Amino acid sequence: MVLETIKTEGLALLSYVVGDDDAGICAVIDPRRDAQVYVDVARENNVRITHILETHIHADFVSGSRELSELTGAKIYGGKSSDYSFDVKQLEEGDEFELGQLKFKVLHTPGHTPEHISFLVSGGKGASEPWGIFTGDTLFAGEVGRPDLIGGGTEKKLARQLYHTLHEKILKVGDQVELYPAHGEGSPCGGNIGDRDSSTVGYERLNSKKLQAKSEDEFVKAVLKDLPPAPFYYSRMKKVNAEGPRVLKCLPVVQPLSAKDFAAEMKKKNRLVLDTREIEAFGGAHIEGSLNIALRKEFPIWSGWMLKPEVELLLVLPDQEYLDSAVRHLLRVGYDNIAGYLRQGMRGWMEAGMPFRKLPQMSVHELKEVVVDEKRDGLQVLDVRREDELKQGKIPKAQHIFAAFLPEQLDKLDRNRAVATYCGSGYRASIAASVLERNGFKEVFNIPGSMKAWKNAEFPVEEAEEQQDV
Amino acid sequence: MVLETIKTEGLALLSYVVGDDDAGICAVIDPRRDAQVYVDVARENNVRITHILETHIHADFVSGSRELSELTGAKIYGGKSSDYSFDVKQLEEGDEFELGQLKFKVLHTPGHTPEHISFLVSGGKGASEPWGIFTGDTLFAGEVGRPDLIGGGTEKKLARQLYHTLHEKILKVGDQVELYPAHGEGSPCGGNIGDRDSSTVGYERLNSKKLQAKSEDEFVKAVLKDLPPAPFYYSRMKKVNAEGPRVLKCLPVVQPLSAKDFAAEMKKKNRLVLDTREIEAFGGAHIEGSLNIALRKEFPIWSGWMLKPEVELLLVLPDQEYLDSAVRHLLRVGYDNIAGYLRQGMRGWMEAGMPFRKLPQMSVHELKEVVVDEKRDGLQVLDVRREDELKQGKIPKAQHIFAAFLPEQLDKLDRNRAVATYCGSGYRASIAASVLERNGFKEVFNIPGSMKAWKNAEFPVEEAEEQQDV
Amino acid sequence: MVLETIKTEGLALLSYVVGDDDAGICAVIDPRRDAQVYVDVARENNVRITHILETHIHADFVSGSRELSELTGAKIYGGKSSDYSFDVKQLEEGDEFELGQLKFKVLHTPGHTPEHISFLVSGGKGASEPWGIFTGDTLFAGEVGRPDLIGGGTEKKLARQLYHTLHEKILKVGDQVELYPAHGEGSPCGGNIGDRDSSTVGYERLNSKKLQAKSEDEFVKAVLKDLPPAPFYYSRMKKVNAEGPRVLKCLPVVQPLSAKDFAAEMKKKNRLVLDTREIEAFGGAHIEGSLNIALRKEFPIWSGWMLKPEVELLLVLPDQEYLDSAVRHLLRVGYDNIAGYLRQGMRGWMEAGMPFRKLPQMSVHELKEVVVDEKRDGLQVLDVRREDELKQGKIPKAQHIFAAFLPEQLDKLDRNRAVATYCGSGYRASIAASVLERNGFKEVFNIPGSMKAWKNAEFPVEEAEEQQDV
Amino acid sequence: MVLETIKTEGLALLSYVVGDDDAGICAVIDPRRDAQVYVDVARENNVRITHILETHIHADFVSGSRELSELTGAKIYGGKSSDYSFDVKQLEEGDEFELGQLKFKVLHTPGHTPEHISFLVSGGKGASEPWGIFTGDTLFAGEVGRPDLIGGGTEKKLARQLYHTLHEKILKVGDQVELYPAHGEGSPCGGNIGDRDSSTVGYERLNSKKLQAKSEDEFVKAVLKDLPPAPFYYSRMKKVNAEGPRVLKCLPVVQPLSAKDFAAEMKKKNRLVLDTREIEAFGGAHIEGSLNIALRKEFPIWSGWMLKPEVELLLVLPDQEYLDSAVRHLLRVGYDNIAGYLRQGMRGWMEAGMPFRKLPQMSVHELKEVVVDEKRDGLQVLDVRREDELKQGKIPKAQHIFAAFLPEQLDKLDRNRAVATYCGSGYRASIAASVLERNGFKEVFNIPGSMKAWKNAEFPVEEAEEQQDV
Repeated sequence: MVLETIKTEGLALLSYVVGDDDAGICAVIDPRRDAQVYVDVARENNVRITHILETHIHADFVSGSRELSELTGAKIYGGKSSDYSFDVKQLEEGDEFELGQLKFKVLHTPGHTPEHISFLVSGGKGASEPWGIFTGDTLFAGEVGRPDLIGGGTEKKLARQLYHTLHEKILKVGDQVELYPAHGEGSPCGGNIGDRDSSTVGYERLNSKKLQAKSEDEFVKAVLKDLPPAPFYYSRMKKVNAEGPRVLKCLPVVQPLSAKDFAAEMKKKNRLVLDTREIEAFGGAHIEGSLNIALRKEFPIWSGWMLKPEVELLLVLPDQEYLDSAVRHLLRVGYDNIAGYLRQGMRGWMEAGMPFRKLPQMSVHELKEVVVDEKRDGLQVLDVRREDELKQGKIPKAQHIFAAFLPEQLDKLDRNRAVATYCGSGYRASIAASVLERNGFKEVFNIPGSMKAWKNAEFPVEEAEEQQDV
Repeated sequence: MVLETIKTEGLALLSYVVGDDDAGICAVIDPRRDAQVYVDVARENNVRITHILETHIHADFVSGSRELSELTGAKIYGGKSSDYSFDVKQLEEGDEFELGQLKFKVLHTPGHTPEHISFLVSGGKGASEPWGIFTGDTLFAGEVGRPDLIGGGTEKKLARQLYHTLHEKILKVGDQVELYPAHGEGSPCGGNIGDRDSSTVGYERLNSKKLQAKSEDEFVKAVLKDLPPAPFYYSRMKKVNAEGPRVLKCLPVVQPLSAKDFAAEMKKKNRLVLDTREIEAFGGAHIEGSLNIALRKEFPIWSGWMLKPEVELLLVLPDQEYLDSAVRHLLRVGYDNIAGYLRQGMRGWMEAGMPFRKLPQMSVHELKEVVVDEKRDGLQVLDVRREDELKQGKIPKAQHIFAAFLPEQLDKLDRNRAVATYCGSGYRASIAASVLERNGFKEVFNIPGSMKAWKNAEFPVEEAEEQQDV
Repeated sequence: MVLETIKTEGLALLSYVVGDDDAGICAVIDPRRDAQVYVDVARENNVRITHILETHIHADFVSGSRELSELTGAKIYGGKSSDYSFDVKQLEEGDEFELGQLKFKVLHTPGHTPEHISFLVSGGKGASEPWGIFTGDTLFAGEVGRPDLIGGGTEKKLARQLYHTLHEKILKVGDQVELYPAHGEGSPCGGNIGDRDSSTVGYERLNSKKLQAKSEDEFVKAVLKDLPPAPFYYSRMKKVNAEGPRVLKCLPVVQPLSAKDFAAEMKKKNRLVLDTREIEAFGGAHIEGSLNIALRKEFPIWSGWMLKPEVELLLVLPDQEYLDSAVRHLLRVGYDNIAGYLRQGMRGWMEAGMPFRKLPQMSVHELKEVVVDEKRDGLQVLDVRREDELKQGKIPKAQHIFAAFLPEQLDKLDRNRAVATYCGSGYRASIAASVLERNGFKEVFNIPGSMKAWKNAEFPVEEAEEQQDV
Repeated sequence: MVLETIKTEGLALLSYVVGDDDAGICAVIDPRRDAQVYVDVARENNVRITHILETHIHADFVSGSRELSELTGAKIYGGKSSDYSFDVKQLEEGDEFELGQLKFKVLHTPGHTPEHISFLVSGGKGASEPWGIFTGDTLFAGEVGRPDLIGGGTEKKLARQLYHTLHEKILKVGDQVELYPAHGEGSPCGGNIGDRDSSTVGYERLNSKKLQAKSEDEFVKAVLKDLPPAPFYYSRMKKVNAEGPRVLKCLPVVQPLSAKDFAAEMKKKNRLVLDTREIEAFGGAHIEGSLNIALRKEFPIWSGWMLKPEVELLLVLPDQEYLDSAVRHLLRVGYDNIAGYLRQGMRGWMEAGMPFRKLPQMSVHELKEVVVDEKRDGLQVLDVRREDELKQGKIPKAQHIFAAFLPEQLDKLDRNRAVATYCGSGYRASIAASVLERNGFKEVFNIPGSMKAWKNAEFPVEEAEEQQDV
């Protein structure tokens, strides 16, 4: 038997290659756009990809199904939906198919999306009973799927469907069945997914908080409470995946630009300088007008939050070694339009004698002198975390605007006074700080470490008031 | 959380790197001898190896614990046993320790060996209840551990201990707990392990055949029935692992030898030419006196069966690319003594004008003409599978001697008549055929495909009589 | 400065990435079809590919210029020729261009082909004088280019041009200039290229045999004497490269076929089973009707000799690891039409119970008993080397037909008598033996090691008579 | 033939694997300490390493000869010297040996060091005349070796020997011979080595500046003029290599330390925090007391300048991916004593709530306002380039102290006034700035881009006065 989990950092996507290596065939479940990896895994296992399975129409990444189908000739299967406008064989509750000795049974499992399906799999040596269920975005380790991402006022209806899906379908397959979800920790497709990549139906039945709800109503309430906002790009992705994404075939070749050429490109229309370096490097020196989204695992989702689809990107990298990683992250969330990267990065820029800006990093110790010891006046402290994070407490006197909403809410701040931004770790704070700088704020500080550092330094935490924003 | 399974083909060994990447530390469970892989996995996950855990004193491979301890400074932990003669911290039932947020609870789980321990693990985001059990060689996917490998008449006692271990300890942790055993399919440490690498306690409780036994006595009987013989090298490994294996630090550098130098080495004492090419290539041309054990996943275990510990090996490789793989397989089962490999393989040998031998491959179609259609007389057909495989039927008129026992039972055959060997697929048959040729048998044929081919060609299968050998 | 030689085994092609890493730009000279390697080298050196340079219209491989241009947007430059029917900027004697600090001067260097150009390069730190000349197929280490590959009776004219090119242009640049040719040892584009990849103008002037000719006439005579025949596919390649090869963008994904599916494919029209395993493995067992061209470095050129362009290939590999290598070799010489490869190779075939054939490998010791000791009668011994190799002596009583011509000259042999084939090493002999078998010869032997083995075994060598064939 | 150049960035070391792949043997010339790379290259070329050749006792890196000898059993050969105190076979002028078809002739070539030898090589297909000379540190592309690194007043004597070596031995082998030196651009073993890695004897004869000297005296004068200072660690290395370096066998495993553990380690004796991040990242935030030597190719040599041998290092990395590179660079110049690296780098430190410092990066535009436009008073501008670089002009009003000498000359500066440091590009300036900060200077600025930026911005350059320092 072949069962390999291909984990894609950033999206926290879990794809699966599952098949029968005696029969020499396999399926790929929920592939990402840069799909060569599945071909490689199949080859290593000496199997041919014959089935591409989509548990649902994804909102958080460009599906790799068409890409993989183009590479291998395999057929694409998905749930029943009139939204699909390309060639997808639509499966329904009770459908079954075999891959060598493996048997796949289709369950219709609406809730996260209406057409969502799951695959209950049995077969293999000494395993005639079902041993695994591929639940897509319905049930994760430690969390259930979100019913609110479709929008249009469907969330309650979907939440009720999710309740029935979970209790009447998924949990019914037995405690002993292993759970293979489409996402791990960090994906916004679940409210608060655990940090194991797999689990069991029984473990979730016993321990998943929302599955302890005593009634359908209680479940619906719990599921719709405190949901983080959906990244702006989700609605675009949904449409792209229903219509069938453009096939790339290979990774685009992105070329280096000299400082001079880079500067010339910057002047063109719709160009954005995306600085992917770590926050303190951005703080030390950066190109005026650049947006800082560091190449951590949060990169693709925050790109999806912050980048407009029509923009053509100019990349500043920590090192050219990171080009491949940056390009993959971006194309997975739909940005294939990359005009080039800055040769030798900031070093090349600075050696060319170009001007640069700094964004001072304020330590929590310095911040504490301002907000607690009151040694300085007039600093606006800006908390850019999500609304729901405020419950963990905040830094005294801080104002709150979620980083992704900041470009639309700049007027809530005084441009002529200094602003210091913080979030959970400094990552989103640096995005926000770069947004402020781009928008003409005169004196902006980022607070690296942010709440983590503040708490580790044992400085006083303030309880957040209800709903300061929106 | 970090939880990575490192699978070692051949031994079908499953080692684990499990830890807390927030705290930055991890444990390695049951490492193999070429242990750099664990250091690499730890680095990729940004954690420091602090604990090396041995579920038991292994018999099927040289433990990598000392190697890994030398590389990292981490401490070694194992079960309670007076056999250990090096620095192992011995753990007992109920012992607990933490790795960041993870909690390890020790269960004493005798049965496969007396000192065997298992680790029940809880902790991580949203997972305060135990979610996984690392069972070593006690419970596998689809099979239980073998109690007969220690020898000395202890198998019944250990089988009874195994019963209590399984029913009173392992199964008690709950159906929902994931099972992480030390071996997958193909390891002789379990009678007939399934082809999934993980399972759940509940799945095994419900589906594992031997766990359905209605009483302790029934279980003991089932567990001791039809066990395959233990590879000869197991008793050596046990001793090596109790005393503490020699530390290598790096992989040995094995150098090429020209045909002339290779021929000169062959004349030295205790040298053996080990031809690792596929069976039909060996059949096409090989060096006289060489033993053919092809570099399939069965290679390390069949090396353990066939190679004496004092032998110094001279390798014939399919291609020099395979040197690393051959060397690793060999040192994992205790053979570090490799004198060199033949430069350019058989090609180099033949171009040097050296003589060579052939071992004709007889197709099942040709064989059928002999044994069914009786077109040829006097051929001895030799079945070299394990005793227990005979139950699946055999080729008409075949005689049976298990390949590993052949060197001691050559007198059962007539050296002056032709012999054709078969097994399940032709692999062991080629080992056996090369043994016969080395021992002066004049006319030897191998039957590639063997029983698989015979059955696929739909030729008549004969029921095996009881116990033709031993 | 960047100066990297990218060597492609098989074609013995030497491509170059040469540029200025201060300016951040480079050229690629004579790229192969699977051109991602140049993008990777450029990235590692932090330069952008801006120029693609073709020294001439190649006959021995599909040019990668269009492929690379598609990937990078770089412009293609070549010699002046009306044959080009795609977008190539045509350069003439005396043209100059700069890449940062490097200066490229174009020399028109006809002889190998009429439009052939060379590049004399100067520049870089402390190197204002010309330091290197990229001579394409005009002058190699130890050999000069061949003027006979164009055909159509142009060889004498081109040979005279070559004389003037060499003596009046190339040698005039100075003894101290380094020579960067397009091919190394093993390429049929030169009669007998040396085994160093680079040389100097001075070394060649002093030591290259043909440059010692005392007059133009003597040179022309030497250059046209004893030329090996040009592989059949050369004329096709020439046309493809003049018209502009089809762009692949990525390597094709070739999938595994089960024995059953493979057998079904074999029955379709225009299919050929190409067995790429080593000769003794082919000898041990192979599929009836397959052609054996082993995956040594001779593979692409012998594929070009033996494979018709319209054929669709079914591959038998030594191991699936070799798929990538086989596919690249084949597409470089124009075969992109690969229907699949046999899953698990011959092992899969044999285990499926399919019939197979053997081609016995006859050692030179056995052969000697036949041809010298006359212990067997009636064996036809067939020498399949090139005509010019006969001068090194042959095996007594052998008949000669060059392997590539064999399919058209089968009638020279008696199909009802046994045939044993030999060449220099056994490689071409195995190709020839498989051709004989495919054509119904009843008893065919291959002689591995062939002349090398025969000579190393110190058996008697016979002088070849003049022109036994054609 | 095998001829591969293994280039080691940083040291700009050129090692060679040269051998006969028909005979299956090779030599390695001037190997580095992490020597597995040569074993790998030999394996890829299917040759056995039998000879390890040292052109001389190196001063700029720990020789890998003993390491490689331990791995392969090959014998070590060097020049004639009573300094060697381990097992080196000493070669003299006129000695010859063969490696298959290759012939090595030894030339005694004193000048860089007294025992220095070169190897003139001939042989291979069609190359019976000498084609290459391996000149160690005697003659480079564009430069001659330095005779001043031994010290003790021997430089003039060695310079005279170098003259005779070059003119009477090296240049005598012929213009057409290719030159394979031990170093490329960037090595301090030559004054100003060109940016090609190879050259020819003729090219150097015609173009190398110092070879144009009209007399021995003129040559000696030219060779001893304007030599850059020798890195402090050179004298240590010389001794290590004469005595025989300690054998490591494998790369040391360096483990991550949490911020807390890192801080605890920092308090121990002889610990130094070495921050290897880029200069602007160091500027943005760094640990107080750390020394910044960024992981550019200058890293190993500047480590040799700045690090005391007895120090135990604590590393701050740009990313854990760079650990291997940092460790290799350090052990090549003799620092194996690495206590650990900071887990998650500065991010981990800052999130732990630890305090940090900033070192503001001053752009040349800001600097110009100070020194040209005189908008600010009291800033000390410090030029930390080598003495000889001053000739290219300097920034107005700057004071000069070479970075490596700064720790001993701090008193030349006013600790209570701000200092801004610059060099050629900002790299050494950041080293110097971190030295100043470590030594209690209150306000320190680094000027990224430094002279390159200043000139590119077209700001006024001042001629340097003679010898401002020492």
